[in-house]
Amino acid sequence: MYCIVVYDVGEKRVGKMLKLTRQYFSWIQNSVFEGETTEAKLMEYLHFAEKIMKKEEDSIIVYKMSTNKYLNREIVGVDKSKYTSNFL
Amino acid sequence: MYCIVVYDVGEKRVGKMLKLTRQYFSWIQNSVFEGETTEAKLMEYLHFAEKIMKKEEDSIIVYKMSTNKYLNREIVGVDKSKYTSNFL
Repeated sequence: MYCIVVYDVGEKRVGKMLKLTRQYFSWIQNSVFEGETTEAKLMEYLHFAEKIMKKEEDSIIVYKMSTNKYLNREIVGVDKSKYTSNFL
Repeated sequence: MYCIVVYDVGEKRVGKMLKLTRQYFSWIQNSVFEGETTEAKLMEYLHFAEKIMKKEEDSIIVYKMSTNKYLNREIVGVDKSKYTSNFL
């Protein structure tokens, strides 16, 4: 299964969420991640994510699809993913 | 064609981008939008968006797929889209 993950968390929790999410998905841009995963891996990720999140303020959106074969990504403006290694 | 749009723009430009993007897509959460569109409509949207954006700071990611039939969205935490009408 292929996932797109977008989170929105308070500034104080961004660092932790970034670190966690990068263990499961590839960083694309800011709070946007992507990657091949399994239902079990996703559940594990969300389990840890929920421990970081403030449920009444933060959120995560997960788009699941069976494959990324038909998915086309276009980035307009700064493509920050190019600088991942220097930036993080 | 079905699109997921995620933008990341400086605070000063958020209001304008929100207003523009809502004319083309449905607001899901913060800077995440979705909707059925055409290549021409998307180009039109990006044309106006580029006028708002600061190219060296801001970005938009567009995920395109032929259909949303195989797309599954899951929201963990606050589901802000429920409050859209009150919130905006």
